[in-house]
Amino acid sequence: MEKLNIKEWEKLDLRVGKITAIKDHPNADKLYILLVDLGEGGHDVQIVAGIKPWYKKEELMGKKICIIKNLESVTLRGIESNGMLLAAEFKDKVVLISPEKDVETGARIH
Amino acid sequence: MEKLNIKEWEKLDLRVGKITAIKDHPNADKLYILLVDLGEGGHDVQIVAGIKPWYKKEELMGKKICIIKNLESVTLRGIESNGMLLAAEFKDKVVLISPEKDVETGARIH
Repeated sequence: MEKLNIKEWEKLDLRVGKITAIKDHPNADKLYILLVDLGEGGHDVQIVAGIKPWYKKEELMGKKICIIKNLESVTLRGIESNGMLLAAEFKDKVVLISPEKDVETGARIH
Repeated sequence: MEKLNIKEWEKLDLRVGKITAIKDHPNADKLYILLVDLGEGGHDVQIVAGIKPWYKKEELMGKKICIIKNLESVTLRGIESNGMLLAAEFKDKVVLISPEKDVETGARIH
């Protein structure tokens, strides 16, 4: 892949988010609808994520994950997603990316 | 911050890397020189990272972390760095970002 300048990386607003709610997507078997606290005082962000085959709801609740905060919204099978979570994918396995020790919700990642 | 299109995010080649060696930087108190396996068969990548105040060498050895693989090289106090690791920062604390379960070295993150 093409080499990027550090300035292109710095355009991304990547944050530690805490999952506060999980629902099934009504029209897609692999998608969850998540609410994620980004440390902004009660204004949680809605994110649609394709992690349902790999994570149960009870594993996700309260978990701290990594969120790209400043992506343009997209609509996934009729539900708006206002960001994206980071996950590693290898063959048929998907693993969430998280802070390896506890850190404050909303912390900037860089 | 400005909203980004998903295509800008996809220009980044973000990977799971495994730390295989750690040295002190000869000219900087806060920097380590790391070698990181990105699953490419023995060709480890050298990365300079400012995490020395927060991590001991023995905590880092063998750890799986997240690496931006396709950044332009930079020279930090005379030592070349060919990528960047992800870490969350909050006030005076720095926490590495890692896969939350084991996953193959070199796995793509997206």
